[in-house]
Amino acid sequence: MTVHGGLLKVATAGDGEVVDLTDGIAAVVRQSGVQTGVAVVFAPGATTGVTTIEFEPGAVADLCSLLDRLIPADAGVEHNALNGDTNGHAHLRAALVGPSESIPVVGGRLVLGTWQQIVLVDFDDRAREREIVVQILA
Amino acid sequence: MTVHGGLLKVATAGDGEVVDLTDGIAAVVRQSGVQTGVAVVFAPGATTGVTTIEFEPGAVADLCSLLDRLIPADAGVEHNALNGDTNGHAHLRAALVGPSESIPVVGGRLVLGTWQQIVLVDFDDRAREREIVVQILA
Amino acid sequence: MTVHGGLLKVATAGDGEVVDLTDGIAAVVRQSGVQTGVAVVFAPGATTGVTTIEFEPGAVADLCSLLDRLIPADAGVEHNALNGDTNGHAHLRAALVGPSESIPVVGGRLVLGTWQQIVLVDFDDRAREREIVVQILA
Repeated sequence: MTVHGGLLKVATAGDGEVVDLTDGIAAVVRQSGVQTGVAVVFAPGATTGVTTIEFEPGAVADLCSLLDRLIPADAGVEHNALNGDTNGHAHLRAALVGPSESIPVVGGRLVLGTWQQIVLVDFDDRAREREIVVQILA
Repeated sequence: MTVHGGLLKVATAGDGEVVDLTDGIAAVVRQSGVQTGVAVVFAPGATTGVTTIEFEPGAVADLCSLLDRLIPADAGVEHNALNGDTNGHAHLRAALVGPSESIPVVGGRLVLGTWQQIVLVDFDDRAREREIVVQILA
Repeated sequence: MTVHGGLLKVATAGDGEVVDLTDGIAAVVRQSGVQTGVAVVFAPGATTGVTTIEFEPGAVADLCSLLDRLIPADAGVEHNALNGDTNGHAHLRAALVGPSESIPVVGGRLVLGTWQQIVLVDFDDRAREREIVVQILA
């Protein structure tokens, strides 16, 4: 097998900012020359998640509202108390969304739905520089 | 490496219908001849999710009730308003469940728990024809 | 390609116990000798999930509280009624968290954030012996 790696660097504002990674991942696929395989996308960090969504302002706003409601800012009370921290809720949101997704590559392209983008969600409560690891397996 | 691909086609009624993909994925594994590897399952589409559950009527009904409660039909209000759409909640449910799972293949078989099936959940608010992509990495 | 397999055995108390798998998975990576690839982690079983979190007592307690609140013990009522069972809520929690994650291996090491550990969460309502399957793709 061959494994082709890529690293995407993004600056986020935190607080649930959703970043579209699709073009960056597609560029790693193109550079790899892989026609048939899988792109593994992973966010190193305990306060970020990777998923797919239609990347348009409405769905993005709804996702933020949803997570604010299900996992409010005071949901991480034990983490904050024990660690003198303020981002316990971000840890919980990240654990629920999960850090990785695996997307097939067919004909040299990511297989995605028409309205489906691969996104990073940065739940931390401050601006961060993030690195996303992409491995193309083929 | 070798990558063996398969495509599963299913017709769903939408509205949270849960479809058992296990036999279809197992057939792709058998056709690949792979003894040791990983099956990557991915749902192209922004309103579907892939996960595992015990595929029996009770757990399936409970899962639908849970998602109706956590992410009700009016949770996608911004998506619907901006796009003249009605399925904003389906986008949110899909983003939370996620589009991919990776299941080990050992001894030519999927490694699953006794009561564990691999399922597609179609959250869209209408009947759909869906294609699920399976890549066997070995 | 080469696929290197590992099996981690853990005894859990159930009821949402969170088990840190990171050292075990790192040992499988080392034994594989793989420098560049992906570690696929999968929990066979319908009442367990795999995700990442900062493995410290506060975040772990907050995660348990969160799932108790979002998916209470009576959320699996149909599963329990139809199967004479008591762990319907565990099935739902497991389906939402999901059974697999894929973590890149670079330079012979798992690529993880500083505060990020790979964990099993056992949602079943009794103590269990669990086997976690790790496949290293390279």
